Amino acid sequence: MNYKIASIAGDGIGPEIVREARKVLDKIGQKYGHTFEYEELLMGGCSIDVYGESLTDETLEKAKACDSILLGAVGGNVGQSNWYQIEPSKRPEAGLLKIRKGLGLYANIRPAILFDELSGACPLKPELTEGGFDFVVMRELTGGLYFGERKTIEENGVTKAIDTLSYDENEIRRIAKWGFDVAMKRNKKVCSVDKANVLDSSRLWRKVVKEVAKDYPEVELTDMLVDNCAMQLVRDPKQFDVILTENMFGDILSDEASMVTGSIGMLSSASLGATKLGLYEPSHGSAPDIAGQNKANPIATILSAAMMLRYSFDLEEEADAVENAVKQVLKDGYRTVDIMAEGKTCVGTTEMGDLIAERI
Amino acid sequence: MNYKIASIAGDGIGPEIVREARKVLDKIGQKYGHTFEYEELLMGGCSIDVYGESLTDETLEKAKACDSILLGAVGGNVGQSNWYQIEPSKRPEAGLLKIRKGLGLYANIRPAILFDELSGACPLKPELTEGGFDFVVMRELTGGLYFGERKTIEENGVTKAIDTLSYDENEIRRIAKWGFDVAMKRNKKVCSVDKANVLDSSRLWRKVVKEVAKDYPEVELTDMLVDNCAMQLVRDPKQFDVILTENMFGDILSDEASMVTGSIGMLSSASLGATKLGLYEPSHGSAPDIAGQNKANPIATILSAAMMLRYSFDLEEEADAVENAVKQVLKDGYRTVDIMAEGKTCVGTTEMGDLIAERI
Ligand SMILES: CC(C)[C@H](C(=O)O)[C@@H](O)C(=O)O
Ligand SMILES: CC(C)[C@H](C(=O)O)[C@@H](O)C(=O)O
Repeated sequence: MNYKIASIAGDGIGPEIVREARKVLDKIGQKYGHTFEYEELLMGGCSIDVYGESLTDETLEKAKACDSILLGAVGGNVGQSNWYQIEPSKRPEAGLLKIRKGLGLYANIRPAILFDELSGACPLKPELTEGGFDFVVMRELTGGLYFGERKTIEENGVTKAIDTLSYDENEIRRIAKWGFDVAMKRNKKVCSVDKANVLDSSRLWRKVVKEVAKDYPEVELTDMLVDNCAMQLVRDPKQFDVILTENMFGDILSDEASMVTGSIGMLSSASLGATKLGLYEPSHGSAPDIAGQNKANPIATILSAAMMLRYSFDLEEEADAVENAVKQVLKDGYRTVDIMAEGKTCVGTTEMGDLIAERI
Repeated sequence: MNYKIASIAGDGIGPEIVREARKVLDKIGQKYGHTFEYEELLMGGCSIDVYGESLTDETLEKAKACDSILLGAVGGNVGQSNWYQIEPSKRPEAGLLKIRKGLGLYANIRPAILFDELSGACPLKPELTEGGFDFVVMRELTGGLYFGERKTIEENGVTKAIDTLSYDENEIRRIAKWGFDVAMKRNKKVCSVDKANVLDSSRLWRKVVKEVAKDYPEVELTDMLVDNCAMQLVRDPKQFDVILTENMFGDILSDEASMVTGSIGMLSSASLGATKLGLYEPSHGSAPDIAGQNKANPIATILSAAMMLRYSFDLEEEADAVENAVKQVLKDGYRTVDIMAEGKTCVGTTEMGDLIAERI
C-alpha cells in the first residue's frame, strides 16, 4: 500500500526526531512492502518565520489531504524568541490548536508507561511502582477552555479577561465512547476525572459518561475529582487503566503522569477524530536548548509512528515490530542521554534511530 | 486578650480534629494569659441535616462577627450520602465556597513541607528530596472558574453546560501582592503559574504579576505553565519557594504538592482577605471512612490554629510554641496511624492532642 504522511518537523529538536521516525517507518516500508510518501509542511515558529503565522490555511488544507500526520514539536523559548512577540492567535502553539480543531481531532491518547528497563528513572520510590504501571490518559482535545470564547475588556477603567469553558453532551459522549473502547482493549477500567463539586460542565460530563457506561457493562467506571487525581497519580499510579478527562484537566494530568514515569522522552501520543486521519507526536516539547546537538531522544516520536501504523493504517503487525525494536534496543543497553544509567551505552539521536531501524 | 473564634467542626473527622486544636489553643491561653471564646457554628452536611443547606446566611453573619474561624472539614461520601441528592448550591462544598466568598478570603496559603522526621513517608526517591523542602502554594480563592457565571442550557435539543473563568486586574494584583509579601519573609522567590499560551485570563495574570514584581526588586520572579508545574512538583519540588496561581490551578497543584510531601495529615492552610479575619483549616478532607474512630491525625488542624495565632492575632511567640510542640512530639516518637513508621509509638487523635498540649 501507499500512504501519504504529512511530515511536520516543527521547531527545536523537531527536525531531528522526525527524521529518525521516518527512518524507522521507511525500514517498515521496505520490509513489509509499503510506501510512505511524505509531504513536508511548516508549522510553528518555522512557519512564522516564512508566513508570519504558525499555521496557514493552505498548510492545513494540505495536511487534510494526507492519510495521517507525523509531528515533531513546535515552539521556542517564550522569553527569548520573536515568535512570542506577535499576537497570540499567530504564535507557535496556536498552530497546534488550529490543526487539532481544523481536523476535528477530539481524542488525545497519551500512554503513561513505566518501562521495565527504565524503572530506575522513575522519581517515585520503587515500592510504589513495583511490577510497573501502564495506563493511558484519554484527553478531550477540541473543547473546553481551549476553544471557548475569550476576550479582554475594560470595565470602568479596569481590565478584565474572560475565558469560557463549555461542553455539550455530544462532545462528551464521543470522547467517552473512545475512552470505553480503549478500556475494552485494555484492563476494562475507566476513571473519569472532573470537578463536579464546582463546575456545571463537570456535572454534565459525569452524567453523560455514566450514560455511555451503560453500553459497556464489562467496564468498571469510577469518578474522581481532578484535585484528588493529581494526588493519586503520585501516591499510587498503578491503580489506573484509562483516565478519561476534559481538555485542560487532561493537559495538566497527562504531563504529571508522564513525569511520574520518569521517561518523558519515551512517551508517544495520538490525536484522533471521526476518520482515520490522526496526528501523532511525542508527549514532550521542542526542547530548544538541546536542538541540533544530536542529543534528543527520538523514541517518543518513533513510538508515535507506531501508533500511526496501528490507529490510522490498521497495520498491527508493523506497529508491533516497531515497538519490539524499541524494547530490544533498550534491552541491548543503548540509551540517549536523558535516560542514561550506569553501565549502559550512551548514543545520539541518529544512532538511536539507526539501532532501532536495524532491529526491524 | 480575649479572642472570639468561630468553631466550625463540620463533618466526618471534623469534630475530632477541631476538638484537639481547641485543646492546644486553650493550653496556649492558660500559659500566655489569653482567653479564646468559641462560637460553635454548623456548616456542611451537619448543617444540611438541620437547615437544608450547607451554610445559612445567619451562620455566615455570626462567623463574620468573630475574630477568626477554625474549620475542621466538610462533606461526606458523594456516592452514598443524602447531602449530594440536593441541588448543587446547597451541598456541603457550596458552604465552603460561600464562606470564602462571603468573607472576602481571596488568599489561600498552603504550606508544603517535607518534615524531617517524616521524610520516610514521602513518595519520591530520597535523592530528589535530600535536605528537605518547604514551599507554599498561594492560591487565589474567590475568583476564576469557581465564581464565574455558570449555566446548563438546551440548544436545539442538545444539553450544553457553560462555566466562566474571569479575572480582573485588581483581583490579580491583590493576590500577587500577598505572594510577594510572603516571599519577602521566605526565600524571595515567586513562581507564577498560568496557562498564558492558551488563556486570556492567564495572559492578564502574567502581565499584572510582572507589574507587581516591580515593587519587590529583591524577589526573583519566574513564570511557569501549569502543565509544566504539575511535572516539576514531581521532578524537583526543592526548586520552589512561593507558587502563586489562580483558583482552579491552585486547587490541583496544592493537592499534588501536599501528596508529594507524603504527610497530608500534617498540612495546614489559611485563607485570608483584606482584614485580620481569616479561616484556618487542614489541607485534607473530612475522611468519612475513619470518622469517630479516634484515628484521624489532628496535627494539620493544630498547625492551622498556629497559623491563626500568627496571621489573625499577631501572636508570633504563641504560634512558635505550638509549632515547636508539634516538632517535639514527632521527635519523641509519637505518630498517628497515617504517619506511623517502624519503631515509633502509635497514638490516637485524643492522645496526640494531649501530647502536643503537654509540650506547650
Ligand atoms: C502547547 C500547548 C498549547 C499544548 C496544550 O496545552 O494542549 C501542550 O501543552 C500539549 O499538551 O499538547
Ligand atoms: C471542596 C472543594 C470545593 C474545595 C475546592 O476545590 O476549593 C477543596 O478541594 C479545597 O481545595 O479546599
